[in-house]
Amino acid sequence: MNTADLGLPVDVPSTALFTDHYELTMLQAALKAGTADRRSVFEVFTRRLPEGRRYGVVAGTGRVLDAVENFRFDADVIGFLRERRVVDEATLEWLSSYRFSGDVWGYPEGEVYFPGSPILRVEGSFAECVLLETVILSILNHDSAIAAAASRMASAAGERPLIEMGARRTHELAAVAASRAAYVGGFTTTSDLAAGFRYDIPTVGTSAHAFTLLHDNERDAFQAQVDSLGPGTTLLVDTYDVTEAVRTAVDIAGPELGAVRIDSGDLLLVAHRVRDQLDELGATKTKIVVTSDLDEYAIASLAAAPVDAYGVGTQLVTGSGHPTCSMVYKLVARAHSADVKAPLEPVAKKSLGAKSSVGGRKWAARRPDEHGVAEAEVIGTGAVPVELADHQLLVELIKGGEVVAREPLDTVRDRHAAARERLPLSATQLSKGEAVIPTEYV
Amino acid sequence: MNTADLGLPVDVPSTALFTDHYELTMLQAALKAGTADRRSVFEVFTRRLPEGRRYGVVAGTGRVLDAVENFRFDADVIGFLRERRVVDEATLEWLSSYRFSGDVWGYPEGEVYFPGSPILRVEGSFAECVLLETVILSILNHDSAIAAAASRMASAAGERPLIEMGARRTHELAAVAASRAAYVGGFTTTSDLAAGFRYDIPTVGTSAHAFTLLHDNERDAFQAQVDSLGPGTTLLVDTYDVTEAVRTAVDIAGPELGAVRIDSGDLLLVAHRVRDQLDELGATKTKIVVTSDLDEYAIASLAAAPVDAYGVGTQLVTGSGHPTCSMVYKLVARAHSADVKAPLEPVAKKSLGAKSSVGGRKWAARRPDEHGVAEAEVIGTGAVPVELADHQLLVELIKGGEVVAREPLDTVRDRHAAARERLPLSATQLSKGEAVIPTEYV
Repeated sequence: MNTADLGLPVDVPSTALFTDHYELTMLQAALKAGTADRRSVFEVFTRRLPEGRRYGVVAGTGRVLDAVENFRFDADVIGFLRERRVVDEATLEWLSSYRFSGDVWGYPEGEVYFPGSPILRVEGSFAECVLLETVILSILNHDSAIAAAASRMASAAGERPLIEMGARRTHELAAVAASRAAYVGGFTTTSDLAAGFRYDIPTVGTSAHAFTLLHDNERDAFQAQVDSLGPGTTLLVDTYDVTEAVRTAVDIAGPELGAVRIDSGDLLLVAHRVRDQLDELGATKTKIVVTSDLDEYAIASLAAAPVDAYGVGTQLVTGSGHPTCSMVYKLVARAHSADVKAPLEPVAKKSLGAKSSVGGRKWAARRPDEHGVAEAEVIGTGAVPVELADHQLLVELIKGGEVVAREPLDTVRDRHAAARERLPLSATQLSKGEAVIPTEYV
Repeated sequence: MNTADLGLPVDVPSTALFTDHYELTMLQAALKAGTADRRSVFEVFTRRLPEGRRYGVVAGTGRVLDAVENFRFDADVIGFLRERRVVDEATLEWLSSYRFSGDVWGYPEGEVYFPGSPILRVEGSFAECVLLETVILSILNHDSAIAAAASRMASAAGERPLIEMGARRTHELAAVAASRAAYVGGFTTTSDLAAGFRYDIPTVGTSAHAFTLLHDNERDAFQAQVDSLGPGTTLLVDTYDVTEAVRTAVDIAGPELGAVRIDSGDLLLVAHRVRDQLDELGATKTKIVVTSDLDEYAIASLAAAPVDAYGVGTQLVTGSGHPTCSMVYKLVARAHSADVKAPLEPVAKKSLGAKSSVGGRKWAARRPDEHGVAEAEVIGTGAVPVELADHQLLVELIKGGEVVAREPLDTVRDRHAAARERLPLSATQLSKGEAVIPTEYV
């Protein structure tokens, strides 16, 4: 993790505290029992998609790689753990030289996923893998939830750009990750300067009602904005009367006025009226930006309206009803020793109810039909069937502790668009339904 | 903000990037127009509570104070804004010496709130106040949402302790703030080490299924845990067969076994069976901890079950259906100049629909009935009626740019418990309803 990973100009030496207490006490017990170094395989997967959703979107993988690389127990952290007596001295000693040395494979970021998809696979000693559970799940559960909502909104918006503007509706640093995930899902820009700083996502802004109210009247406010930012700016036209505001806006900025923003009222109706008025005033190239509690359904309902861009806040950063995924990090196989030749035995919880899982180290492939459209998520253990060899989903991300798969965010964004494109058409239906392709275990 | 505010042992010099792009462009325009220094009053409030909720909980105020204090545009930030051409050189020059010098009043953290409550009031020049909008709202919207869910869960749990264990279900740093907000709302402990590090919240842990699966059998796993952590540990008993696990657990740890955790199945039924079995085995003091997608309703449904503690994850960190509040930050009054003697004029957006707001610098008081039970949230502008003078809610938080109201988290937690106690009894009904007291404007 580098200085900017928190959207802040600071050095962040460690992510090791983003960890549940029990990871460390389990480590202590396993160290004492001599089982800590047993070769182990953990997998991240979800048992189901959020209700009604047809696909999930893997997001946050790049952040996971940073988090694993910087997972170190430095002196401050060790001091805290000692003072609080979280674990014993032998365990602190072990932790002080911790560095993940195993392998991580996973779905490449931006890929879609389905129930059971082994999104991430972490292999190494039990000790080194178990510690990573909390931070890996935090990142993937949050970022994938946002990306899934973003993807649905991007489908609904079609070619029209989407502006992420939800920073004020979520934790200040979750907001930075949300901007990133939104970009992966298909958003175009963000209002969040920290996201611009950290991830180089283009930042944009319009104006707030406070700016209009600051001035003696709307005309003064518009004049001040245009004087400073030029006629290409976006003027907010719903502080008082929209029709009068649009007239004033064009009067001041001329037909070169960049855009107007509408933030309240019946957006469908108001957008039509404003478009007509702008055209009558000769401002035929002036764009209309709408905001106001939009979600994918509201965006879709505006498809036929003369809207040029959507600004989305609350519903984006809260995952449009599903603010988290239900990804879990489970031990699926382990050997009896650290020896790489020791056979891996599949393991799985056997209790009643929906929480049992499938043991064994898994591969996954997406089987296409004759037209190249996905028809099943195929998951198995053992050898990959020949006909699926070219359709495998997992790629190597960390090899012997070294990150081997960093990539630019635009690559991830393009991958997501391409992956969604290869799903059956019903994937982008907004109505509630089942996963768009079935998961098959072989 | 000090080194640990991110749950990390690092220096964090600035929160200034947690800001929407338009705050800076509005500043630029106002600087050029000569209106930037107009004395202004902004207020944070919410137009409604989340559907069905009877009260809100103010949380995050302490974090807001840190954020305002550390809101500085250092060289790295200025360099970024220049390179991206967010604002012009004159504005960058102004920003480089920015330091909030105004006043902030607000509901003390932990207080309850209702629709319209002026939770925070920020006064100073337009320029210095408008910049703080995004970060203030991020913190209050997130933390208050979590605290409100926590408060309902704490009511439902009664005297039984609540363990916050949702880190893996939300952004890794949102998780730290969520632990803090949960503690304010009435939780007892957290699993999140970063929250323990930063806010001194007691951390606790049990064990995961992976630990059992790592070992050759459940007996080995329990033995390893008890050997290392002592009989007072909490053993997870639902990896295979609960009855057999409980028998093995007491066999190994003896009647001094601290607790068993149940994480699946019909918790009501299983808790009764396990209690009976523990008692039969002589482990009458061994406690039962339940986890597994609990929310306030599930907690309430277990009130008559022999449960000693609840662990809550997903539903806590996602605000139990309401992951954000709808708090806004609005300009409510401004003068025509920077002169402190210039009269403040109330301002408000006038557009159609639910988004209009009430202008003017407000006071708020909670009027009690003859028994001391709250009967109305009274909000007004101008002079406070004599009979309400002793019931005012806003307190001074920042004076001339200096924080004057830091307080320990336990004070905040106690304040919340006391504030909830003074609400009508129906406040803690879990069923959906209206705000438990009306908001009156005078």
